[in-house]
Amino acid sequence: MKIVEQIKLPIKKEMELFEDKFEDSMTSKVPLINRITHFIVRRKGKQMRPMFVFLVAKMVSDGNFSERTYRGASLIELIHTGSLVHDDVVDDSNRRRGFFSLNALWKNKIAVLFGDFLFSKSLLLSIDNDDFDLLKLISIALKEMTEGELLQIEKARKLDITEDIYFEIIRQKTATLIAACTGIGAASVGAEKEEIDLMRQFGQYIGIAFQIKDDLFDYTDAKIGKPTGIDIKEQKMTLPLIHTLNNCSEKDKKWIINSVKNHNRNKKRVKEVIAFVKKNGGIEYTTTKMKEYQNKALNILNPYPDSEYKESLISMVNYVIDRKI
Amino acid sequence: MKIVEQIKLPIKKEMELFEDKFEDSMTSKVPLINRITHFIVRRKGKQMRPMFVFLVAKMVSDGNFSERTYRGASLIELIHTGSLVHDDVVDDSNRRRGFFSLNALWKNKIAVLFGDFLFSKSLLLSIDNDDFDLLKLISIALKEMTEGELLQIEKARKLDITEDIYFEIIRQKTATLIAACTGIGAASVGAEKEEIDLMRQFGQYIGIAFQIKDDLFDYTDAKIGKPTGIDIKEQKMTLPLIHTLNNCSEKDKKWIINSVKNHNRNKKRVKEVIAFVKKNGGIEYTTTKMKEYQNKALNILNPYPDSEYKESLISMVNYVIDRKI
Repeated sequence: MKIVEQIKLPIKKEMELFEDKFEDSMTSKVPLINRITHFIVRRKGKQMRPMFVFLVAKMVSDGNFSERTYRGASLIELIHTGSLVHDDVVDDSNRRRGFFSLNALWKNKIAVLFGDFLFSKSLLLSIDNDDFDLLKLISIALKEMTEGELLQIEKARKLDITEDIYFEIIRQKTATLIAACTGIGAASVGAEKEEIDLMRQFGQYIGIAFQIKDDLFDYTDAKIGKPTGIDIKEQKMTLPLIHTLNNCSEKDKKWIINSVKNHNRNKKRVKEVIAFVKKNGGIEYTTTKMKEYQNKALNILNPYPDSEYKESLISMVNYVIDRKI
Repeated sequence: MKIVEQIKLPIKKEMELFEDKFEDSMTSKVPLINRITHFIVRRKGKQMRPMFVFLVAKMVSDGNFSERTYRGASLIELIHTGSLVHDDVVDDSNRRRGFFSLNALWKNKIAVLFGDFLFSKSLLLSIDNDDFDLLKLISIALKEMTEGELLQIEKARKLDITEDIYFEIIRQKTATLIAACTGIGAASVGAEKEEIDLMRQFGQYIGIAFQIKDDLFDYTDAKIGKPTGIDIKEQKMTLPLIHTLNNCSEKDKKWIINSVKNHNRNKKRVKEVIAFVKKNGGIEYTTTKMKEYQNKALNILNPYPDSEYKESLISMVNYVIDRKI
């Protein structure tokens, strides 16, 4: 059995029920909207986010669960899907890795409006059910996601990202959404503030490890269907390169900066930069950092009594690091 | 004194204070965001939306006012500005009439993210202050605005809009936001549900009259800085044309549909369609309808005792119809 299917086993029924609930949360009187919705639901991915919500809810409440947990997951999927749709406009890409591209089918105009529509539906779903605590958790995530992306754009222009700023960017643009999943999972079953904060921290560590893994793919050629060197081409400074820049001679530093700034579309040159990063320990250092965050996440689970939910969460944390895609 | 300045007199101090509060509501740790914010605040328009919020709040509460009223106005401006920024992406226009084009300066990527950032800030502003009732009113508006635009896109493709659908589209895409302004104005000073609903109705009538006026500009050449015929070029079916189609021979109907479908970029042909609409009473009919909604709005104000706030609201309703821009 595939690892993701195995992780899902303790929440199999809930995940199935969730599919309908999520599609219901997007309905509209406008036929065009329902056609897009149907298209999106069919193309669903691995559903990591609802899995985090459900497994955390189950773990912290010894198997309890409520309609609020489903609504929390819908809330996250609505905001996340809205962001993805907007991201397609943003990147003007023809397809997302493994996801869908609304953009390629219906153009920017519809994509922006449809993303905004999903945001509004998530608001109404929360407000109509007095889920203000859940709405606050996802609102913080939405704010940080946009700030993280804009900070990355601002910093990318100058190519002067420190390690601290790199971690701030990935915490905001990626980890904050997983923190919202795990936080909302706990909040949805009535956990105390302290435990909600702990679960947010858990999600944040996972998210940071997840993004470091993603950034590593760009240097290691391991990700299925994605060539290496894209980040350098897009002048995105990630940890393997940042670490290398901080630990090489001034001359090599100038060569790297010049390569990223002026030769980022030259495939041979990009390959040379990747080889330099590998030779200078950029991959080892980044891998070590990633594992640090993996362990921080796992340590948070330690005090919880053993359960099938805890076991699945441990597998999910490890999957984030071991995945090939 | 200009009419808009005159209308503002009873709320002059509040409008001045509001400028700072609105700018504060957008602050971020990310310098890029603050630069965009500063640019937007400087380019502010006539500020009709906060004017509606403040004047209604004052009228229904005999001059009362609270921080909640300011927050309600900020909420609307955040959502509206977010939509405007997104709209710039949507239309790929180089400039908005009288507003700003973030798009032309920073490209789509930043515009989409910045719009989403404003949405998230509006959520947090409401949630942190327990303004859930105000958030609900603006969420309904956001949902209807996106649905209205998507419905218009869907219908525009088929060129088969009835008068009923035209009114449904303009109610959703335009009137719902003004209804949110007037509804939030009342809700912010603790009005009862019945009065909030009445004030929403008031705003809705104004919004419908406003959009009809906008659509009339496209046939009457009266709007400063905007050529006529743009709607036909973009295959947007508005009331002057819809009425004409419903009241002409089958032969003329076919000629109009063919013109809009296949000759919409032919300036001479578009001028001929406009002339046909004028000759066949399309403008008179549309003007009559617009005045109907103007009167419906004014009638709602009738039972209120005379006050400087009521007087300004009456002037605003009339300005919506008499404006040249």
